[in-house]
Amino acid sequence: MEERLQKQLEFALEIDKEKSIFRQTHLSGHGRNENDAEHAWHMAVMAYLLKEYANEKIDITRVMIMCLIHDIVEIEAGDTYAYDTEEKKTQKAREDAAKEKLYSMLPEDQKEEFISLFDEFEECQTAEAKFARAMDNLQPLILNNSNNGADWHSHQVSAEQVYGRQARTKEGSEKLYEVTDNIIQENIRKGNLKA
Amino acid sequence: MEERLQKQLEFALEIDKEKSIFRQTHLSGHGRNENDAEHAWHMAVMAYLLKEYANEKIDITRVMIMCLIHDIVEIEAGDTYAYDTEEKKTQKAREDAAKEKLYSMLPEDQKEEFISLFDEFEECQTAEAKFARAMDNLQPLILNNSNNGADWHSHQVSAEQVYGRQARTKEGSEKLYEVTDNIIQENIRKGNLKA
Repeated sequence: MEERLQKQLEFALEIDKEKSIFRQTHLSGHGRNENDAEHAWHMAVMAYLLKEYANEKIDITRVMIMCLIHDIVEIEAGDTYAYDTEEKKTQKAREDAAKEKLYSMLPEDQKEEFISLFDEFEECQTAEAKFARAMDNLQPLILNNSNNGADWHSHQVSAEQVYGRQARTKEGSEKLYEVTDNIIQENIRKGNLKA
Repeated sequence: MEERLQKQLEFALEIDKEKSIFRQTHLSGHGRNENDAEHAWHMAVMAYLLKEYANEKIDITRVMIMCLIHDIVEIEAGDTYAYDTEEKKTQKAREDAAKEKLYSMLPEDQKEEFISLFDEFEECQTAEAKFARAMDNLQPLILNNSNNGADWHSHQVSAEQVYGRQARTKEGSEKLYEVTDNIIQENIRKGNLKA
């Protein structure tokens, strides 16, 4: 087999490990913890489903592939909980090393392309990255909301912290930020989230 | 909230259940059974990664969304194992009912669009559907190959049956069918698969 195809298939097998990286978010129906592959799948479907709400014109293919690959680095770097301030300090260094290691499995042109997509997502400056980031925020929010904020409870997260994270949703979609704001307010009223 | 957006968000939450539909395939490293959401994610990333091997020119967005949504019906219809001849007899009727029920949660235009994408995948006539189908075949094959054919063993599947299913890969990608053929032959040589 040609070296190019062999590298691509080895990478395809390697990323299977993303299904074993678990997040703090729980599935609806008070289910088990969600893993990164499931989260990425859900984000990509939601991006396609909700694309009409993007603030700017977007290339949906780029949004979807960013959603699908943004957490592959966690195979090496592990999941960093959104509200863990200690882990957050080392996140970038861990993920940069992971990115280099994992994407080096690919042929050079695809290594460059995937790293560029990952960086674009992280830097969150383009219309596509902003909309993908909005999905990264909205997807766990709707799960957690369906579970009466159980994930916030168990980590004693405050409304201020949730607003801090969810603020970026506005950059990708004003409309979906309205939804976000409504969900947060409702959870404060219900006592699921500390004001 | 507008009815349209509300419907879209209810659908987004409903499909979370796909993460609890388990397949016969096991994760690499002799892991647990894989679920439909993980399988769909893996297929979509592989489609993007391997798109240069499609026999015909393809619209990769359509391929990816087909990969991502093709198993949503299984939330209602359950997973049908590729080599279960009894279950296969009722599969279409079960999935058609499920498709109507689930996609009716969406606004009419999106219901039509998603059903059309699902049908296109099932009918496997377009270049995009053929390539998506090739991913549906190749993805579990590389996992099972990495586990020395354990899934074939436990279901006593023969090489003839595997060839029967994998034949359609050729319609999507001659090149990836070569890989498929090599993997099957290697597993026959190793005694993982009955010739």
